[in-house]
Formats: sequence, structure tokens, C-alpha cells
Amino acid sequence: MFKVPDHQVAGHQAGNGVLGPLIDDSGHFYKPLQSGERGSKEVAFYKSFSSNTEIQDRIRKFFPIFHGTMLIEASDGSGLQPHLVLEDVVFRRLNPSIMDVKIGSRTWYPQASEDYILRCLKKDRETTSLPLGFRISGLQIFGSKESGVWRPDRKSIINFTAQNVRLVLRKFVSSNTSGDSSTEPDCSFASTVYSGSTGILAQLLELKAWVEDQTIFHFYSSSVLMVYERESIEKGMSSGATVKLIDFAHAVECDGVIDHNFLGGLCSLIKFISEILANLPSNTTKAFVKDLGNNCTC
Amino acid sequence: MFKVPDHQVAGHQAGNGVLGPLIDDSGHFYKPLQSGERGSKEVAFYKSFSSNTEIQDRIRKFFPIFHGTMLIEASDGSGLQPHLVLEDVVFRRLNPSIMDVKIGSRTWYPQASEDYILRCLKKDRETTSLPLGFRISGLQIFGSKESGVWRPDRKSIINFTAQNVRLVLRKFVSSNTSGDSSTEPDCSFASTVYSGSTGILAQLLELKAWVEDQTIFHFYSSSVLMVYERESIEKGMSSGATVKLIDFAHAVECDGVIDHNFLGGLCSLIKFISEILANLPSNTTKAFVKDLGNNCTC
Repeated sequence: MFKVPDHQVAGHQAGNGVLGPLIDDSGHFYKPLQSGERGSKEVAFYKSFSSNTEIQDRIRKFFPIFHGTMLIEASDGSGLQPHLVLEDVVFRRLNPSIMDVKIGSRTWYPQASEDYILRCLKKDRETTSLPLGFRISGLQIFGSKESGVWRPDRKSIINFTAQNVRLVLRKFVSSNTSGDSSTEPDCSFASTVYSGSTGILAQLLELKAWVEDQTIFHFYSSSVLMVYERESIEKGMSSGATVKLIDFAHAVECDGVIDHNFLGGLCSLIKFISEILANLPSNTTKAFVKDLGNNCTC
Repeated sequence: MFKVPDHQVAGHQAGNGVLGPLIDDSGHFYKPLQSGERGSKEVAFYKSFSSNTEIQDRIRKFFPIFHGTMLIEASDGSGLQPHLVLEDVVFRRLNPSIMDVKIGSRTWYPQASEDYILRCLKKDRETTSLPLGFRISGLQIFGSKESGVWRPDRKSIINFTAQNVRLVLRKFVSSNTSGDSSTEPDCSFASTVYSGSTGILAQLLELKAWVEDQTIFHFYSSSVLMVYERESIEKGMSSGATVKLIDFAHAVECDGVIDHNFLGGLCSLIKFISEILANLPSNTTKAFVKDLGNNCTC
């Protein structure tokens, strides 16, 4: 009934005696509660968020649906363990391209322990979190049935520079993507995936508008997950471009102040994507970006 | 010819053998070059900024005009010393109310020395910089000819909590302001000073739109200065509400990435001010805030 997810690009992966998330064939994602207070904090976040009546559906759609917690057989063979039961955000996606972007130049929160703060600060400084306001935590890009999926290893991802990030955000929406970095990405899916009223940029801008205004949740170390399906585009169907916010083990409630740390990083990611669109040859896309700019100046 | 400024609310103040800025009676502000590379970095910033042809006048107006550097007799009696010659941003303002708000949850930049980073981090954590994304560095509020100016001492300002900041931003635009914290601020100037097309909120939103887009300058430890004149309002004239950006000893050029740290803090300040306006009884002001919200969601 339970199986290891095919499309997990970051975090601990189940299998070979390792504890990790599982999925079923009805669209549920079972995430083991993390040790210590992380697990209980993530449950508390999902409970608080899903019961908050002020959050509108246009924002709620960015979060995995929460179905409670459940004791299930853990993937590491340790017996029954508590798991969060969430929406499987890539359910029924055949060959999705996925990018996990951890948002915020600071992944630690003021109330954390000194030891935790120092470890986070070190990692933020060693990665692009500090200079860019976000870092890529994982990705997979589907090429074709023949070439399969390109999934760089974690070590190379953690060492991404600003230049690598810029390149990978272009590769993500290119038809000639491969592990070979010498190929210039053609960005042929950029306008379909990133722009348009249902594209990733429009979704990120909707999320941004909410983050500028809401003063309840602060999301430390949470990720924006960007997903689309190349094969759908090639069949002339919708790209399935979707933005989801995931990982709330360090979400805190913070009455009365916006999440300026998350907002800054999100705006930085928006700017990176906007620049890719602004540099495309297509006039249609440029006009779209310009039009968004008149409202939101991103 | 040179004199000590009347309306300096933060930074080293000239006089009694202390090195500090001076003004003249033709609208110039002479700022001693700070020691080490701070001074040369601030000069470099002003040179780069003032020679940058891409910056439009609607943004340039937020920065003091730069008139070069000059050797003048220093205020501490140490003889001729190099000074930045800047626009005196409160020139000919009789009894201005002024607030200096240091923007950014992080006042240090990645390239700084370990020692400097640790000192800044400590101060950011001890003040509201970390939780709010900004901290008040200094203020003066003009009450009346009789009551004069209320200028809290530095020690109390540095200890401001989120609640103090919220209160002081309301006191700043109240007619019953005094050092006595038991009086509920009436916010009677809030709509004149903060809202409207020439008010402080509109100016901050214009600055924000630029910060979301520009990828040249990163402003660490810079301040937004907010100024207005109560007496002008009481005479039925313009409030003279003005926003200026000052202090660029730690401004760095950072090609291709937005200043997400400054942006987050600026949006947080905008939210604080928006909330003051949203809680006013006047319907006119509420409508204005709502209208802005439709474009910018602040």
C-alpha cells in the first residue's frame, strides 16, 4: 500500500533502512514526524493553518492539504511511527520537472537555540541563501523518455553559486537540458511555464502579495516547490505549472509583523525568473512581464 | 560659517571636542569621512550613485544631493579633515519632527570581517532589527513652542521593543505627544503625514518599487529618514512630509541581485504605517489605503 515517492528531490529519502516519506496510490503523502520539537511544530503549523478561517482559497491552494496524523509502519523498519498525512503534491504527475527552493537569507528564527542558530548561519553563509535570499535544495528536470531525468547530486547543489542558480533556473525550462553544463539552455518552455496568468511567476506574485500583508506565520527554512510537466506541453496541453509551499518544521506564529525574511527571498526569486523572461526573444512574454510590472514592479 | 546641526537625531554629534557633522547657512551638510574604509566607501557610493544615468529623478529625490568632498576644519578641533558635502535634508525646516529608521534585519554584508559581523549580529538580535526588519535609531517629535521637542535618549531608543516601535510610530504623528508614555496618542496628523499622494507611505511605496527592481546597490545599515513639520499643518500648509535615504558607509554594489534584506525591512515598516492608517476612524484614509492595496498589497 505504501511506497517510496519517485519524485522527491530534497530531504531524507526512504529506503535502505532510512526513515523518509511514503506515498499511497490515492494521493496521500506520509511524512514521518521529525525528531524533537520539529515534528510537533510542523503538526502544530498544519493544524493552525488549516483551521484558520481568514486564509482564502487563493492562498490555501499553495499549501498541501492536511489530513491529520497517522501511525504507520515507518520506512526504516522501526515499526509504527507517527506521520503527517498530507496531499501528495505530485500525485498523478508522470514525469514532472521539480525544483525545491528554500526561501529566506536566514533559515533560523530568533527563539532558536544558540547551537542551532550558529549551524544555520554557517550554512546560510556557505550557500546562496545569504547573497540571494534563497537556495536551491533539490531539483529534477525531465528531458525525454530516452534521456530520462537529470537530478544533480546534493553535493553539487549545495555548492551552487549565484551564476549556477541563474543557469539552473534557465535549464529548468529548456528542452535541451542535460547534466552537461556546456550546452546553452534554449529556454523554450520559459514562457509557457514561467509566464502567463497560470504560470509560475503569476503564482509567486500572488503568494508575494499575501506575504506582504499577512502577519501570522513566519516561514523559516520552508521551501517553494515549482513543478511542471514537459510532456504535457509537448502534447499541447497545460504545462501543469504549480507552486507549492512545503516544510514547516520551523514555521512560527508571529503576531503583528510580516515575514520580511521570507518576503525578501521570495522577491529575489521572482526577480531571477522575471529576468529570464525579460531576456527571451518573444515580444508577447516581454509585454506580459511589463504588464505585471505596472502593478507589482517585479 | 559652519555650525552644529540642530536636528540631528542619530550618529555622532559635533561639539565638546567630538567629531560630527556640520552645516552652513546655504543648505549644505558636511559629514566627516568615517575612519578606515567606511569613509572612502561612502564617498565611492555617492560618486557611483550620482554618476549613474539609469537612476530616474523620482528615485534620486530620495537621496541627499552630493556636492563632492571638501577639507574643512573638523568639529573636534583636529584641524582640516575631509568631509562629504551633502544636501542638508532639513534645511529651512523650522521645527521638524524627524525619525531615523535603520532598515534591514541584517546590518552586515557577506564580505565584512568576522569581528564586524559578530558585533552587528549581536546588535541586530538585541534590537528590533531581527524581529521587525528595522530599528529606530533616533527621533525627535516637535510638540509646541511651549512643550518644545521630545527627543528620547539613545539608551531608551536602543531598547525599544516591537510594542514601543508601534507606539512611537503613532506618537510621531500625534498632537498630544510627550515623553509621558501613559497618554494615548491621538494620531491626529497621521492621515496628513502618512497617507495621501505626497505622504510618507506613498513615498515609501515608490522607494519599495525601485528596491524590488534595482540590482545595483545593496544598502546595509542605511536609514530611512522621515521628516514633517507640525506647524505647517497647523497653519493649513503642506506637512512637508519627506522620506530620505541616508548613511551609505556600508552600501555595496552587488550586480544582478535585488537588496532582499533592505526590501524585507522596508516592507515591514510600510506594514506598520499602513496598520496605523487602517485603524484610524477616518473613512477617507481607509479608502486610500485600500486603494493602494489593490495595486501593491501593502
